[in-house]
Order: sequence, then structure tokens, then C-alpha cells
Amino acid sequence: MSSDNPQREVLWAGRFLDVVRINRWEFVQRKNITGIVGIVPVTNDGKLVLLEQYRPPIGGKVIELPAGLVGDVPGNRSEPLEAAARRELHEETGYEARRMEVLFEGCVTPGLCDETISFFLATDLYKTADGGGDETEDIIVHEVPLGAVMDFLAEQQRKGFFIDLKVYSALFFLQREIVERQED
Amino acid sequence: MSSDNPQREVLWAGRFLDVVRINRWEFVQRKNITGIVGIVPVTNDGKLVLLEQYRPPIGGKVIELPAGLVGDVPGNRSEPLEAAARRELHEETGYEARRMEVLFEGCVTPGLCDETISFFLATDLYKTADGGGDETEDIIVHEVPLGAVMDFLAEQQRKGFFIDLKVYSALFFLQREIVERQED
Repeated sequence: MSSDNPQREVLWAGRFLDVVRINRWEFVQRKNITGIVGIVPVTNDGKLVLLEQYRPPIGGKVIELPAGLVGDVPGNRSEPLEAAARRELHEETGYEARRMEVLFEGCVTPGLCDETISFFLATDLYKTADGGGDETEDIIVHEVPLGAVMDFLAEQQRKGFFIDLKVYSALFFLQREIVERQED
Repeated sequence: MSSDNPQREVLWAGRFLDVVRINRWEFVQRKNITGIVGIVPVTNDGKLVLLEQYRPPIGGKVIELPAGLVGDVPGNRSEPLEAAARRELHEETGYEARRMEVLFEGCVTPGLCDETISFFLATDLYKTADGGGDETEDIIVHEVPLGAVMDFLAEQQRKGFFIDLKVYSALFFLQREIVERQED
């Protein structure tokens, strides 16, 4: 509705989402957030930390990386991305990380939604809680040796679970990291 | 609204999307489709075929793989996934493929939308048209040698373009394919 984008029309305004139209394109915007973060946590003994949780939109269990919305906590709109990544990592897995660095970023469904995600590699981990998510979440944490991740994912698919494709994006970057460190 | 899922409530019904609530969870369902396909096209001289297109939801140019909705063409609701992948590949890139095989599948934003995507590896390609999409699309096709894809993507990001994270998922599987073929 702003003057620099006169064709933007809010078709429906919800609690967490708005549906917007620009020309003939219907899409979704998340409300009250400043960003989205994902975390690629790797333990000191070389295990990738993955989550298993039921996702209502998909109607099934999903294997995915820790992730969360930024700036959605009342009174904390200006939360930096890295702080949000640390918060989500701790809430969902119980881990804290001595080292966090941006691993990759991009969009996930640019024909449907405005969201982009920044993924942090979290290493030098130490556990200070059980994880499992906040009071609205019911998360099972899996720690899988990097060399066994593909077998683990295939097993979850056989059980009828969905794999979030961002897990494979993370595996691509983890492989590059491992190759680079070997070359150092 | 079906009896086996009594909590499902349609909050808003659009032309292409519905907003649905189950318990406290607001999410989006695409209408009038039976699936989504993506294509990972690799030319005979080892180039990955990528698209550049402006995406209204994100308000910018995105580098992404060919992809499209299945069953959204009137009169063709029962279109098989592979046929849809071939149709989208041809519309968007001008290529036809002598070989198509499922490479990976999963979900992309399971907290927001019910969509899952099946990606096909398309090889043994031959060009029969210019590509560029249908009359509603404005697509630039890039053919990038596999060894130069990461440099290409970094250059696009420097220009302010977004990278669809599914490109990295595809690169992960392409690397595995290459390793497996070398081991054969």
C-alpha cells in the first residue's frame, strides 16, 4: 500500500501471515519478524544435530535443521540474527556454541513467500539443557555421525517422514568445509 | 472441514492459495495442484542449467532451478510428475531430455506450507526451443559449467540476486552422482 509500490494489495491479514497480491501474483508474507535463521550444529565428535517434529501444514513428521523466526519475541524486535540463532539452537537442542559463523543464505520458496533464511554453522558445542523446543513445540533431537546422515535420512523416508530439503543444502556446505579444512 | 480432520478451518480462500488453521497453526495450501516438480538439467558438456527470474514475493531476481506446479493445467489434472517435469523443462529452458530420473524429494517450508517437491535429474539433453517460460514468465537461462557454479552464484549474490537454497541441495546430489559414476 506504500506509494513506492502502488500495486501491493493486502488480500487477507492474519495473526502470523498476510496474503498479498502484486499484479496477478498471490503470495504470503510472515508478520512481525525481521528475518529467519537456521542452524547447522556439528558436535565435537562429528555428529550433525537434526530435529524430528510434527508439522501441521504437511500433516506429518519432518526431519529438519534447527531454525526459527527473528524479532518475533515481544520487546526484542531488534534481535541480531546470530543471537536468534543461538536462542533457537538452545531452545531446540539444548546446545550452546562457542563458534557461530554464517554458512549460507538464500530463499526457499520465492514464488510463494518473501522469506529468506540465513544459516549458521554452529561448532564447539556444549550442552546446557535438554532441548526439545518451547512450550508449543514437541521436538526429538537426533545426533547423527556425518558419514551416516544419508542412511539415516533414507531410513526416515521409509518410515514416511519428510526430509526438509535444506538439510541437503547444509550437507553440501559441510562437505565443502571439510574439504577446505583438509586442504589447509 | 472434512470429518476426519475436524480442526481444519479455511481462514481465507484465494485464487491460487488457501490460508488454513489447524489448532493455532496458520499456514498456506496451494490450490488446484497435485504436486510440484523441480528439474536439475545437466547438459552433455557438463553444464548445469539455471534460471534467473524476477520473483514478486521476494521483490528481486532469483537464481533457481526449473520447477513448476503439477496438475494445474485445466483438463490435465492427472498429469504424471515426470510429464510435468518434462513440460516445465521445455517451457523454461527449451531443452528436452532423453533421460529423466528422480534425484531427491522433500519439503521446503514445512512450517508455512504443505508443499513438497520432487526433483528430477535431466540428462542427455537436446534443445528444441528457446525457453524463457510461458507468456506470464520472463526467464533468463544460464548454462554454467559444474565446476564454476559456486563462483557464478557468488557473483549473482554480489549483484543483489537471491539464491534459491534448493540449488545447493541439487549440487549436493550432483556431487554424489559424479562420485558414484567415477566409482562404477
